[in-house]
Amino acid sequence: MSNQNTPASQDQFANKAQAWSARFSEPVSDLVKRYTASVNFDKRMAHFDIQGSLAHATMLAAVGVISAEDKADIERGMQQILQEIDAGQFEWLLDLEDVHLNIEKRLVELIGDAGKRLHTGRSRNDQVATDIRLWLRNEIDIALELLAQMQVKLAQLALEQADTILPGFTHLQVAQPVTFGHHLLAYAEMFKRDAERLADCRKRVNRLPLGAAALAGTSFPIDREMVAKLLNFDEVCRNSLDAVSDRDFAIEYCAAAALIMTHISRFSEELVMWMSPRVGFIDLADRFCTGSSIMPQKKNPDVPELARGKTGRVNGNLIALLTLMKGQPLAYNKDNQEDKEGLFDSADTIRDTLTIFVDMIAGIKVKASAMRDAALQGFATATDLADYLVKKGLPFRDAHETVAAAVRHCEDAGCDLADLSLEQLQAFDASIEADIFQVLTLEGSVAARKHIGGTAPERVRIEAQRIIDQNS
Amino acid sequence: MSNQNTPASQDQFANKAQAWSARFSEPVSDLVKRYTASVNFDKRMAHFDIQGSLAHATMLAAVGVISAEDKADIERGMQQILQEIDAGQFEWLLDLEDVHLNIEKRLVELIGDAGKRLHTGRSRNDQVATDIRLWLRNEIDIALELLAQMQVKLAQLALEQADTILPGFTHLQVAQPVTFGHHLLAYAEMFKRDAERLADCRKRVNRLPLGAAALAGTSFPIDREMVAKLLNFDEVCRNSLDAVSDRDFAIEYCAAAALIMTHISRFSEELVMWMSPRVGFIDLADRFCTGSSIMPQKKNPDVPELARGKTGRVNGNLIALLTLMKGQPLAYNKDNQEDKEGLFDSADTIRDTLTIFVDMIAGIKVKASAMRDAALQGFATATDLADYLVKKGLPFRDAHETVAAAVRHCEDAGCDLADLSLEQLQAFDASIEADIFQVLTLEGSVAARKHIGGTAPERVRIEAQRIIDQNS
Amino acid sequence: MSNQNTPASQDQFANKAQAWSARFSEPVSDLVKRYTASVNFDKRMAHFDIQGSLAHATMLAAVGVISAEDKADIERGMQQILQEIDAGQFEWLLDLEDVHLNIEKRLVELIGDAGKRLHTGRSRNDQVATDIRLWLRNEIDIALELLAQMQVKLAQLALEQADTILPGFTHLQVAQPVTFGHHLLAYAEMFKRDAERLADCRKRVNRLPLGAAALAGTSFPIDREMVAKLLNFDEVCRNSLDAVSDRDFAIEYCAAAALIMTHISRFSEELVMWMSPRVGFIDLADRFCTGSSIMPQKKNPDVPELARGKTGRVNGNLIALLTLMKGQPLAYNKDNQEDKEGLFDSADTIRDTLTIFVDMIAGIKVKASAMRDAALQGFATATDLADYLVKKGLPFRDAHETVAAAVRHCEDAGCDLADLSLEQLQAFDASIEADIFQVLTLEGSVAARKHIGGTAPERVRIEAQRIIDQNS
Amino acid sequence: MSNQNTPASQDQFANKAQAWSARFSEPVSDLVKRYTASVNFDKRMAHFDIQGSLAHATMLAAVGVISAEDKADIERGMQQILQEIDAGQFEWLLDLEDVHLNIEKRLVELIGDAGKRLHTGRSRNDQVATDIRLWLRNEIDIALELLAQMQVKLAQLALEQADTILPGFTHLQVAQPVTFGHHLLAYAEMFKRDAERLADCRKRVNRLPLGAAALAGTSFPIDREMVAKLLNFDEVCRNSLDAVSDRDFAIEYCAAAALIMTHISRFSEELVMWMSPRVGFIDLADRFCTGSSIMPQKKNPDVPELARGKTGRVNGNLIALLTLMKGQPLAYNKDNQEDKEGLFDSADTIRDTLTIFVDMIAGIKVKASAMRDAALQGFATATDLADYLVKKGLPFRDAHETVAAAVRHCEDAGCDLADLSLEQLQAFDASIEADIFQVLTLEGSVAARKHIGGTAPERVRIEAQRIIDQNS
Repeated sequence: MSNQNTPASQDQFANKAQAWSARFSEPVSDLVKRYTASVNFDKRMAHFDIQGSLAHATMLAAVGVISAEDKADIERGMQQILQEIDAGQFEWLLDLEDVHLNIEKRLVELIGDAGKRLHTGRSRNDQVATDIRLWLRNEIDIALELLAQMQVKLAQLALEQADTILPGFTHLQVAQPVTFGHHLLAYAEMFKRDAERLADCRKRVNRLPLGAAALAGTSFPIDREMVAKLLNFDEVCRNSLDAVSDRDFAIEYCAAAALIMTHISRFSEELVMWMSPRVGFIDLADRFCTGSSIMPQKKNPDVPELARGKTGRVNGNLIALLTLMKGQPLAYNKDNQEDKEGLFDSADTIRDTLTIFVDMIAGIKVKASAMRDAALQGFATATDLADYLVKKGLPFRDAHETVAAAVRHCEDAGCDLADLSLEQLQAFDASIEADIFQVLTLEGSVAARKHIGGTAPERVRIEAQRIIDQNS
Repeated sequence: MSNQNTPASQDQFANKAQAWSARFSEPVSDLVKRYTASVNFDKRMAHFDIQGSLAHATMLAAVGVISAEDKADIERGMQQILQEIDAGQFEWLLDLEDVHLNIEKRLVELIGDAGKRLHTGRSRNDQVATDIRLWLRNEIDIALELLAQMQVKLAQLALEQADTILPGFTHLQVAQPVTFGHHLLAYAEMFKRDAERLADCRKRVNRLPLGAAALAGTSFPIDREMVAKLLNFDEVCRNSLDAVSDRDFAIEYCAAAALIMTHISRFSEELVMWMSPRVGFIDLADRFCTGSSIMPQKKNPDVPELARGKTGRVNGNLIALLTLMKGQPLAYNKDNQEDKEGLFDSADTIRDTLTIFVDMIAGIKVKASAMRDAALQGFATATDLADYLVKKGLPFRDAHETVAAAVRHCEDAGCDLADLSLEQLQAFDASIEADIFQVLTLEGSVAARKHIGGTAPERVRIEAQRIIDQNS
Repeated sequence: MSNQNTPASQDQFANKAQAWSARFSEPVSDLVKRYTASVNFDKRMAHFDIQGSLAHATMLAAVGVISAEDKADIERGMQQILQEIDAGQFEWLLDLEDVHLNIEKRLVELIGDAGKRLHTGRSRNDQVATDIRLWLRNEIDIALELLAQMQVKLAQLALEQADTILPGFTHLQVAQPVTFGHHLLAYAEMFKRDAERLADCRKRVNRLPLGAAALAGTSFPIDREMVAKLLNFDEVCRNSLDAVSDRDFAIEYCAAAALIMTHISRFSEELVMWMSPRVGFIDLADRFCTGSSIMPQKKNPDVPELARGKTGRVNGNLIALLTLMKGQPLAYNKDNQEDKEGLFDSADTIRDTLTIFVDMIAGIKVKASAMRDAALQGFATATDLADYLVKKGLPFRDAHETVAAAVRHCEDAGCDLADLSLEQLQAFDASIEADIFQVLTLEGSVAARKHIGGTAPERVRIEAQRIIDQNS
Repeated sequence: MSNQNTPASQDQFANKAQAWSARFSEPVSDLVKRYTASVNFDKRMAHFDIQGSLAHATMLAAVGVISAEDKADIERGMQQILQEIDAGQFEWLLDLEDVHLNIEKRLVELIGDAGKRLHTGRSRNDQVATDIRLWLRNEIDIALELLAQMQVKLAQLALEQADTILPGFTHLQVAQPVTFGHHLLAYAEMFKRDAERLADCRKRVNRLPLGAAALAGTSFPIDREMVAKLLNFDEVCRNSLDAVSDRDFAIEYCAAAALIMTHISRFSEELVMWMSPRVGFIDLADRFCTGSSIMPQKKNPDVPELARGKTGRVNGNLIALLTLMKGQPLAYNKDNQEDKEGLFDSADTIRDTLTIFVDMIAGIKVKASAMRDAALQGFATATDLADYLVKKGLPFRDAHETVAAAVRHCEDAGCDLADLSLEQLQAFDASIEADIFQVLTLEGSVAARKHIGGTAPERVRIEAQRIIDQNS
């Protein structure tokens, strides 16, 4: 077989602008072309498209469908195309619809008939499904690394702030004193779960659809397991109809991304609130803030606010994909082309946001005294008094009611529980002794909660170190 | 006041790359800059930004805050900027964050101090809210025009197909015969409601936020009603805190867009199904279809499929904006910058999709005989027999049961109701007479439903003409 | 025609438990029955179902399809059924699927053949569409009344608090002083728009689908405009296929409800934050709060928190309905039965939440001194200084930069702008004179913003009074 | 310690109706009570609440916080409460807010002070988080069993239908012949992934929050790992703030449920279409269908339609929970109470829908001849001709174009490719020989696709058997 191009095959690409194939009697209109083309957004998968094509060619040669020369030509041609793409010299044509046809056409230009043999035993349906899985697997690996860094940064700051006390809030009301290190580790737990979820999702991403061809498999003697091995896929998709129409992996990723952004939104909400002057628990480094075009005194925590807002788009992308797949009959339908932009956008949002947050955590300036002042307000150790009474023999429910009465007394008197004299305290329950005053301190309160999961400084140090060790 | 630029003011823009203002001690990082900048997507509002600035300047001059010379300079400078933008020569800088600062900086370069006076009595908060309303109002007007064309095209085809009979389905089972014209007019009704909704939404879009300044209004003696008049706003926003933080109008638009796409998705579902060979009711012009990279015989209805898929993104954008606004405290927060991309995307989707569909309706080739064949299958006129029996005196519930028995008989015998002899029919109910055979024809069935909303050809003609008249 | 029941017709209902009609050869299983039945949730529409049936009967009698005696029998039977329902004595049967068949079967029991004639010229498809519109119209009217009350309560509190100053925040940073009355009126504006939207939505709800029958209209000489008039519908649906399958009105309502809850969520976010001890701007009446099972000192703002959380379900209901309708072919499909529960839930949430908030606004205890203290922190009047300099001749951009330098000086010195001496101020700009100190007061700042939409007390009084007048 | 109730503790519960504790000065209003109470929906977790309480009591006794007698009393009391609940005799009071306080109050009534000691070292915040995880774990186990049954039923039918040929569609156009068994196995793959996802989700559900108390842990010497072991949790939650506020597991479950329903919606879409008379590929057993109140001939596939519609509510529940958690600060807020109803609804929908579908698959009556007729229409073996030409030496792209020309010829001639004579075929490419006619048969086409994932009957048998073996 020669490398010479026959006129007919050139025409196939050339005619795309006028008509799809000999079967069509009129060309698509320009608006339809723009509306249905995907090359503007799917060209970002070009490296993965070529990676997949090379593995396919290697397999085709191994099973004897193409010759060793064809394979060598394809590899040479693809090498040049990669260089052209990386150098920004590749000419992407809307007329050629998508990343696949653009690359294939250039390949045929470069190497002739060998290029026309590459599409043997496959279809764009299984090709695009392979590309997007390769692309997403890479994005997941990047996100996993960033999530590990997030955990480490949070744990490092937690180690530093293991003894810093701030009020723990429920309902934004002062509940009990906690350490700031403990508070930070709550977010480390969330990002740890996010990493687990992405790792689980990766298992289902990392399966090879190639070989499903258009929908039914192919009559060529392909070796799918060889291709899977070449591309580091864990398994092959075991049903061709499912392989070309499955977008579960994209939805599962988008759902995991939505949870990551949910955690970011919660953290951001707290950062913004902590920076508000009435709270004043932290300051953020200037490089994460902007000023105002009209109010010269402003320093705004733009990054966490914007990140909180980006939760919206990631939730939206999830719904977009779920809506897309709802009620679609087998196998491939053009609807599926809509899977990419939302997926790309979620992955970009995750990557940028995590990268910035990893840096921003190091830019948190803790205002420990403001935190401590706030913890002294609001009877944060009332539960410790109740626990004390229980240890003296009162049933918890009765202890709870006794302390409520003491709190009410203090509120009327404008003082804290720790400000009451021993006699005053004994008026509420005779069993109270002098050791109560240690119990009512912030330090005594947090130190007492030293079990797994508790807020005690010693526990925070253990957990923070464990997280650092696991992610380093 | 001279037009000479002072060094200080130049620095303000120049320093953006390093620090926000004299208050900041470190510059934003490049990633933060990219993460927080909006110029890449908000520059599409440039014309509206300039339109708003010109109205603001006119008002400032009218109330004496700036001089007539300043106003003239601003108009001259903006004229040049417009030309630069339209010629693709305007240099958009990421360092200048957004469309507003990019234009303002260029204005100061061109006209000096007059440019620096333009931002008097306003803030980017009310400025961007004004821009986006002007932009959206324009998009709504375009969509209203396209929705009118959709109704006209549907009604024109309905007029042509007023007598064509196809099976009306419920549950995708043959229910009763309907005319294809009537079926098409169902969609005209949907798009009519869409137009109503957009017109209602436009009232709430078309209110002027400018004058709210950052959040509290301004101490300058501004005349907001004059600005509203200049920009053709119906009203002014009556509370400054609300004006800068309100994104209701964007959400309301996105919800209306979601309904438009819901209608498109339903129409597309039918077009795809009608083109499927087992149904074969229509063919779509080749310019709306594509072929296959592997199956040479394929002609795929790509446009309706893709449009159906795009329902996903439009639903997603709606959820993105609702999520964005949930729980945001007053007044402006950086989260709000996330309002634009989803809104732009929904508007673009509506515009492109409606434009294509207006054209595609004319490209529908009706296969009337396939429709008629299908209507003859499935006992479509069984209800007509029941109605006939009611007119003979049977209570409807009894008539329903009698006809069910006749249908069962025909199913077993492998024939249609119209195939039974008068005697056979009379065995089910003695009141049946020879006039039943007219009732059991498809034509008799549809012609009988001539009330408002009914499927009779004469009714279809009246309704179609009414729709054409109302939208021309 | 006699009122005597024929065995056949009784069987039709009786046999529902075994098979749908003579055409079916096996009964539905119990799980299928439960899965597909709607009576458990649609029975709440019973009053509207009966109201629709009575109008239908009146019309049938008027056009001569049923006799005057039949109509009288139907009215008598329905009267008794209404009493049985209101007394809780009506037996709702799952076997009879839905509210319509339950009522119809009872009617036939009570009045015989006249009951069997009621379903002439209609179908459950147009019947349920009519019921749900009647039901929703009523819910909208209730919501409109509640939204008017919300505006009045907010405006009344705004009148009381027209002079109370708190910091206006952007980015949760102190921006400029505003009056609390002005802040409250921002929410009045939001609820005003909500009312407008519901009123617009009501126009599209208030159209009569009855007469569309199953999908194609009916061969009986019905008078749809008479029915519309009897039921106070503004118009009749003009296409039968659309009439039975249209659920736009439900989606539009759910979108409007989502915006109402978005506003509630923003207000709630602020209420919760304002009640947090570090902010302490307000207290909520105890009846809207709960305590803790473990922390005796807690008083939690449960109602606004829960209301904020309920934003989720209302957004969810919107997406549920949009997902439901995506890609549905004409005309009625069983999918549509899923329209109700989400719609009911959104309407219930709106009704309960607005009712509670109307009461809760009166339970807001304002802590004016805490608000004022907060406004004195954060250079809230820096913009006023910049505006002052502009009035002295500086271009705004230069004034902005000058004030930024002054703020930085004060931050370093630990004082406010108003604490600087005239000489110190003049060091930043020589044009500053003694009148600056009035400008730098909170009262001076807010009073200066007296244009439409501004925060000045005099403007707040005008706007609040206007809102009260418009809604009373 | 005695079992005698002190008046004070009784009052605590009794007074709930009037005020939360001694700290409150007014009772909650009836509407607020109803608005904030959860007992109407959370009582379904009663068994799990008691299970958790018993493990907690066992641990408290083991570490010496309560006595062995207390523990025995609690077990005795809980035993009786369980019986009362199961017998429907337990009185659930709205005044007692939730399942926890209702049970605790009854326990105190039954056993006195020991009951009051049960709440030692825990809070409702960690208690409810434990209950809901126990409940959800159980639901997941039920769903896993149902998903296994689904796979088995699909694989059994696939075994039966391994040789049945129908057209494989892409874009609802005939693409290539596939076997019905292969088509069914595509769904088995989807449900297999669903099971994997639920199993992964279960790992994160199955972690113990108890011991986090209100938010910070407790000062009692609790043994959380003992409780985890008693309740079969895999791990303990390692941060108390996270433990009480984490709802990731509910969101992850809802996302997995949304994918299950997405698959159900796709299967349903096909079932409905296959049952439509123009397609006629299958019939569904009557017990999954209903008739019409007006059209006596109708048999509607209600179950798949309704299931398709229920995709909406499950997507909606997912968005509801994501919206709920967006931007929530740590730790517990009342918003979180909104986590349950959506989660319950998704789990109920999954359970009912899967149960019905498992049964319905057995009720699918395959109409093999209609399938075969459809496969003969639309040039389904065109790709096989192209592959044949490639094997003869043509590059695939050229072969594709050659076949397109042949298809066009057949279309014009109104025949199929297999109807052409050898000479006619050779006119398109001279390399074609007599063996082509075997290639162009449906049987030859499917048999050739025998690699892993292909549609060949022999491959379908292998895969179906593997699925049956793995799930039995």
